[in-house]
Amino acid sequence: MASTTSIIQSGFSCGGALSSFTAKPRRMVVVRAQAINPDIKKDEAKVVDSVLVTDLSKPLSAYCRCWRSGTFPLCDGSHVKHNKETGDNVGPLLLKKQ
Amino acid sequence: MASTTSIIQSGFSCGGALSSFTAKPRRMVVVRAQAINPDIKKDEAKVVDSVLVTDLSKPLSAYCRCWRSGTFPLCDGSHVKHNKETGDNVGPLLLKKQ
Repeated sequence: MASTTSIIQSGFSCGGALSSFTAKPRRMVVVRAQAINPDIKKDEAKVVDSVLVTDLSKPLSAYCRCWRSGTFPLCDGSHVKHNKETGDNVGPLLLKKQ
Repeated sequence: MASTTSIIQSGFSCGGALSSFTAKPRRMVVVRAQAINPDIKKDEAKVVDSVLVTDLSKPLSAYCRCWRSGTFPLCDGSHVKHNKETGDNVGPLLLKKQ
């Protein structure tokens, strides 16, 4: 997974030469712009799904927005585990026929 | 943003006591389970949106799945910037009336 990482550090060099190691190690803060889709259709440049609403058979259909569903683009509830593990608050898009 | 981080390291302790520093620093790998929604409705435990498909007025409506749209739950194209910055491949869900 490609990502952009900025490492802000003070008084401490991590993984560098011994000569850059200073006396007072301080907290390292990692600011990361990270991909949100770990696995789905990674061979595609952009994952876009289409729903023809006249084809919806059920009164209610839930569509995934956490990118962790095993039934993507449909929701399988995987956002619950994701939210619990990360403190996130994502949920599905519900399509209602009436 | 809450996150769970596992740090796998070998032969090198970062930010720890000096006594744990060993002779051969090696590559540190950070595996991060991170929230994917940085800003949207963070006062809500779970963001679920509903669309009554009979209310759709346009032939095509794009709904955000990158959690970065300024017009959430609708797509505003923010996934383009996100994908470019992170190497991700996310895109919207398209609802088509016909």
